[in-house]
Amino acid sequence: MMHHKDTSISVALISTFNLCMRTKSKVPFPVVYGMSIAVFSSVVGIISVIIAVYLARWVLRQDPGPEKVRFISEAIATGARAYLFRQYRYLSAVLIALIVIIFGGLTAVYHSVSVGGLSAVAFVVGALGSMIAGYLGMYVTTRSSSRSAMAAYKSAYDALKVAWRAGSVMGLMLAGVALLLISVLYMGFAIAVPSQWAIALIAMAFGASLVTLFMRVGGGIYTKAADLGADLVGKVEKGIPEDDPRNPGVIADNVGDNVGDVAGMAADVFESYVVIMTGTLFLGWVMNLPLTLLLLPLLYGALALLATFVGVFTLRLKGNQHPLSAISFDIYEVIGIAIVLFFASSYVLLKGYGMTAVLAPLAASLGAIVAPIVLALTGYYTHYTYKPVKEIASQATISPATVIVTGYSYGLMSAIPVVLLIAAIIGATYAIGYFAFNGLTTPIVGGAGSAGLLAGIYGTALASVGLLSVAGIIITADSFGPVSDNAAGVAEMSSLPEEVRDRLDVLDAVGNTTKATTKGYAISSAALAALVLFVGLIFEVLSVAKQSYALNSATLLNSIMVLNPNLLIGAFVGAVVVYMLASRTLGAVGKTAMEIVEEIRRQFRERPGILEWKEKPDYARVVDIATRRAIQEFMLPVIVVIIAPIVVGLVLGWQAIVGLILGAIVIGFPRALLMSNAGGAWDNAKKYIESGNLGGKGSEAHKAAVIGDTVGDPFKDTTGPSMNPLIKVLNTLPVVFAPMIVAANGAIGPWMLVHGLLAL
Amino acid sequence: MMHHKDTSISVALISTFNLCMRTKSKVPFPVVYGMSIAVFSSVVGIISVIIAVYLARWVLRQDPGPEKVRFISEAIATGARAYLFRQYRYLSAVLIALIVIIFGGLTAVYHSVSVGGLSAVAFVVGALGSMIAGYLGMYVTTRSSSRSAMAAYKSAYDALKVAWRAGSVMGLMLAGVALLLISVLYMGFAIAVPSQWAIALIAMAFGASLVTLFMRVGGGIYTKAADLGADLVGKVEKGIPEDDPRNPGVIADNVGDNVGDVAGMAADVFESYVVIMTGTLFLGWVMNLPLTLLLLPLLYGALALLATFVGVFTLRLKGNQHPLSAISFDIYEVIGIAIVLFFASSYVLLKGYGMTAVLAPLAASLGAIVAPIVLALTGYYTHYTYKPVKEIASQATISPATVIVTGYSYGLMSAIPVVLLIAAIIGATYAIGYFAFNGLTTPIVGGAGSAGLLAGIYGTALASVGLLSVAGIIITADSFGPVSDNAAGVAEMSSLPEEVRDRLDVLDAVGNTTKATTKGYAISSAALAALVLFVGLIFEVLSVAKQSYALNSATLLNSIMVLNPNLLIGAFVGAVVVYMLASRTLGAVGKTAMEIVEEIRRQFRERPGILEWKEKPDYARVVDIATRRAIQEFMLPVIVVIIAPIVVGLVLGWQAIVGLILGAIVIGFPRALLMSNAGGAWDNAKKYIESGNLGGKGSEAHKAAVIGDTVGDPFKDTTGPSMNPLIKVLNTLPVVFAPMIVAANGAIGPWMLVHGLLAL
Repeated sequence: MMHHKDTSISVALISTFNLCMRTKSKVPFPVVYGMSIAVFSSVVGIISVIIAVYLARWVLRQDPGPEKVRFISEAIATGARAYLFRQYRYLSAVLIALIVIIFGGLTAVYHSVSVGGLSAVAFVVGALGSMIAGYLGMYVTTRSSSRSAMAAYKSAYDALKVAWRAGSVMGLMLAGVALLLISVLYMGFAIAVPSQWAIALIAMAFGASLVTLFMRVGGGIYTKAADLGADLVGKVEKGIPEDDPRNPGVIADNVGDNVGDVAGMAADVFESYVVIMTGTLFLGWVMNLPLTLLLLPLLYGALALLATFVGVFTLRLKGNQHPLSAISFDIYEVIGIAIVLFFASSYVLLKGYGMTAVLAPLAASLGAIVAPIVLALTGYYTHYTYKPVKEIASQATISPATVIVTGYSYGLMSAIPVVLLIAAIIGATYAIGYFAFNGLTTPIVGGAGSAGLLAGIYGTALASVGLLSVAGIIITADSFGPVSDNAAGVAEMSSLPEEVRDRLDVLDAVGNTTKATTKGYAISSAALAALVLFVGLIFEVLSVAKQSYALNSATLLNSIMVLNPNLLIGAFVGAVVVYMLASRTLGAVGKTAMEIVEEIRRQFRERPGILEWKEKPDYARVVDIATRRAIQEFMLPVIVVIIAPIVVGLVLGWQAIVGLILGAIVIGFPRALLMSNAGGAWDNAKKYIESGNLGGKGSEAHKAAVIGDTVGDPFKDTTGPSMNPLIKVLNTLPVVFAPMIVAANGAIGPWMLVHGLLAL
Repeated sequence: MMHHKDTSISVALISTFNLCMRTKSKVPFPVVYGMSIAVFSSVVGIISVIIAVYLARWVLRQDPGPEKVRFISEAIATGARAYLFRQYRYLSAVLIALIVIIFGGLTAVYHSVSVGGLSAVAFVVGALGSMIAGYLGMYVTTRSSSRSAMAAYKSAYDALKVAWRAGSVMGLMLAGVALLLISVLYMGFAIAVPSQWAIALIAMAFGASLVTLFMRVGGGIYTKAADLGADLVGKVEKGIPEDDPRNPGVIADNVGDNVGDVAGMAADVFESYVVIMTGTLFLGWVMNLPLTLLLLPLLYGALALLATFVGVFTLRLKGNQHPLSAISFDIYEVIGIAIVLFFASSYVLLKGYGMTAVLAPLAASLGAIVAPIVLALTGYYTHYTYKPVKEIASQATISPATVIVTGYSYGLMSAIPVVLLIAAIIGATYAIGYFAFNGLTTPIVGGAGSAGLLAGIYGTALASVGLLSVAGIIITADSFGPVSDNAAGVAEMSSLPEEVRDRLDVLDAVGNTTKATTKGYAISSAALAALVLFVGLIFEVLSVAKQSYALNSATLLNSIMVLNPNLLIGAFVGAVVVYMLASRTLGAVGKTAMEIVEEIRRQFRERPGILEWKEKPDYARVVDIATRRAIQEFMLPVIVVIIAPIVVGLVLGWQAIVGLILGAIVIGFPRALLMSNAGGAWDNAKKYIESGNLGGKGSEAHKAAVIGDTVGDPFKDTTGPSMNPLIKVLNTLPVVFAPMIVAANGAIGPWMLVHGLLAL
């Protein structure tokens, strides 16, 4: 296995091929199988990018509409770009500080400038990847929505096609670029620092998740504050429709959709992909797996991307088929093809490993089917064809308060099946992994005794790879959402004909569902990633501590027994971090919205001509308030998130970090589902009434449902989606910083009083 | 130490004295010090009951008011008694099943009818204790509120005095009875089964917490469904005041206050007391502590009760002093006296133990001061003199939605300092305990190596004893709340003069605060109790497994490393149990309230004479609906709570139960604070507006604030308070059932694949 041999860069290319000749491997296999997997995944990544560029050009060739339409979409694009760049500027200060710490710290701990330098490079690549993903998402969406709106003149299918292809640009670009970057960095690092490549590579995951956390929190505050502010004065006080161009907050509202839903979600799925892939590679490195097994994540990622190519081009609307069922079918198709490819390729490549050739793709497939199950469950709890939303809507005939209590109750309920599903997947894939990999691993630390545990976790890691491998099609469906949402908005603002707007409204509703699903998908990946990174972290600490302090691994493992009170203290701190972020994000939306409400009220009051279409409102001022406040509000909580695990680790020992991660995942995972699904259910309860039930639009019931929807907005679009990157940061940060923390406070931690337990 | 000698019951009395002659004790101390502590605590318990009876007679001697007043309070008392008895009837089916299982199971596992039988006895005593506490609370309150209302004719101080003394009846009765029962059971069991008394005694904690969970959930649903139903039609639709006798739901609403707030909270504090005391005794038994140290919980409990006697009789209202500050001062006084007594008694009794004589009372004192800190923090987040409530209220000028989002945000925030406080107390008292008890313990299992860990946890256990030792005064202040709440209600319903009602309204508001504080107090005790019971559980399992399977303790301890995936799966199940209970309770309130709303609307519609004071509404039908539905709704979730840990333990091994407990505490603890405090803040934001701010009563802002308050009602009075007994049941149930589960599935559990870790 490569990191047992020390090779200089000068003989790099030759050693690349030697890497594959695993000394202790039970199964000799040809050189071409080894590194060629990484080359293969790079090529698939490049193809994906090429297809994305082709589709982007196709979308941009569509009719961008008349001057009036173009003006509005241009204003939205400008506002979104301005916000994003300003956000990136603030962010870069934090990033630069971290680059210095990572480079300096890891260089010192590992006595290697290469490890420190490459870690810093990986961190920057991950961070830039998330930033670019966000920018790209925003770029495509702002340019596609007016084109989708114009296409709706022809037919619903044409509008769907433009929106879907715009979504595909995102999906293929993100998955392709992520796979390409990981493959290339892996090859480069494996050549440069053969025994420590994984330590450097995992910094990419930290970079990606950190930037995403900033974008999710900042964008989430922006989008909902602008939405709330614009609606409260426009819809509620003045009774003008949503997206009415007379509303001074309308541009800010649409900018928000782009910087929150689009840029945020693009970065979110990108980082989930990077975290899962690099985390699994890291675990494989800890386990000293044979190269073919080590690179299974890249293989499965590439194969699922091939399946996604098919899905992107085969979306059809048959007869009177509902767009949502066409999209669902398309997702099933991609997952089905991917699973077939997983089994077929494993059969060929893993022939020599016996049952592993079947068990490995089985674990990945179990992960892949999580996506459609989450889709179905999210649908049940957030769609008005089912009981929950209907019951929430019927409470609207009584009072807004019972709408909220009942919606919150169903939100809590909706988390249960997903959490149990993930628990079952962990249990099943752990068992599969145990049987598949137990004999094939010789861990870098912990000895043969840890092999069974690591083998089991690798099964779960492959499930997470399976889940994320289909990210391309999931994000295609997701990005479709904001494109059609904005298309409907553009149509409204540009006063396009009723018929065109109706077509777009149907697509808008479909987009709401795909958006809700992606949130469940992203957070499910966080729960699986947490387990994988968690185990990786512990073994990393073991290896560092063993080297630095010559401590027995058994002593170290004893110290993370649940009896260690620092673990419970850490778990409470994890709870506090989650509550702090949730509280700050919700509070920020309220405060920022209040400022926007006052500005909009002021404009209506001081310039009465606006409401009579005589005067143009000052959109820019509202955009400016939202931008300024969102950035003010998002810095502090995110910095607390960064500092918390480091402080806890330094004061209470790394065992408390383990508790912190556990606490954050156990609290954050169900909370994300609660908030996203309750928000979705309230939104659709309102839509249910608007479609003519229980008194319809304008009734008392409708007013009550609107209040529920307004409460749900920051739940589902600000706080809920922040949980995924939060959990990821709390996982990836310690993996990068643990070596430094262990070096700083001694391997056992200042308070570690339970070591005596060994004497039992 | 007693449980190393096997003594037959025939020589019981002599052995009682021998017990005190600890063979290995470093410090020989006279026999009188030993068992005499338990005798002392029994006597203090009896005195407490006598004082309570004296105070009860005093309260009952007060003027119960004219026929009209008596009629209403009689109707409330009848409804409450009817509900409570019906609830107890359903409950008894569950209890009988559990008695059979506990008796049979523990008899089998320990090959001892005595252990099985005494465990069943302890379980029954705990369960009956909670039931009686609930009934008693209800009895006193329903009889005192009309008397407090009449006393308000004389002066505010007279009304306060009646309500306070009625509260004292509860406080002294509960703490006295609990201390007496624990002391007597301890002495009896120590004589009957000297080596296993703690195993039998801990079943008392399970009985108490299980009954409390039923009462909290059932009563919580009843009270808020009735409240919501009565208010939605009465206040909101018909515009008649709260507690107006024309409202058919008014009696049900007041019955709800009694079965929910009063009976529920009485049972809650009773079980907290029992769980903490028996849990600490259990831990002392595991540690094989010298008798004087073992019985410190009883000693400190008795001393704090003496301090409470002083507090009960010294409440004064000086000049224009606000009743709340008088009550706060009284609580500080009791805690101050208790702390002095802790140190003084320890100085005398623990003289021979060196620093332990100072460190033990220090740990207990740190626990005792948690109560006033939680009081201050709860005050900050729920009082309208501070920023949070003012800000929530100011959001009411914008929309009900922002009231809810901002209140929820502050609710999240309010959990943070309390969680950090408890984490700090755990850390500090663990360190204190480590130094105080490390050399004084020879654990029953685990060897000398576990001594340090157990010593540390015993420090935390003493802190929890300190916290609960002042339960008498806390529950006095708490019970004062519903008495004055009901007094204000009785005054309104009986149309007493304006001036009298104003005096009672002030006391009502004070009662709201003391009620909110007690919730924070109870849940803080749950967090500490969880740690204590948790460690007790693990060592209990070790001891059973060691005997049954001749397994090495180290092997067993390794299996509860956080790396065990069953632990994470268990933690997810813990999250699911909390979410399930929260969802079901909130949902039940909504559904039941809807049924009540329809019934009240029907009465108003079919009998228009009601609103014109011409016809008497049919109170009994609403009472009947609330009773029937509350019982229907509470059975299922509580049974799931009971079954979950047993199923998890049988399928995934006892290690998964450990995860479940951890998950439930980490989720349930902050959630309880969030829900209680957000609810309190919304309530007071409404009161802030009602007191003339931001437009005052009837304004748009007031309507928005009322919606927030209505959402908060089930948060703070149903779901939030259910979290404490839920966590306790999830802790005490496994302690009782673990021996059976371990016997059933083998000590390591079916999935325990990590045992190989030992070979590191």
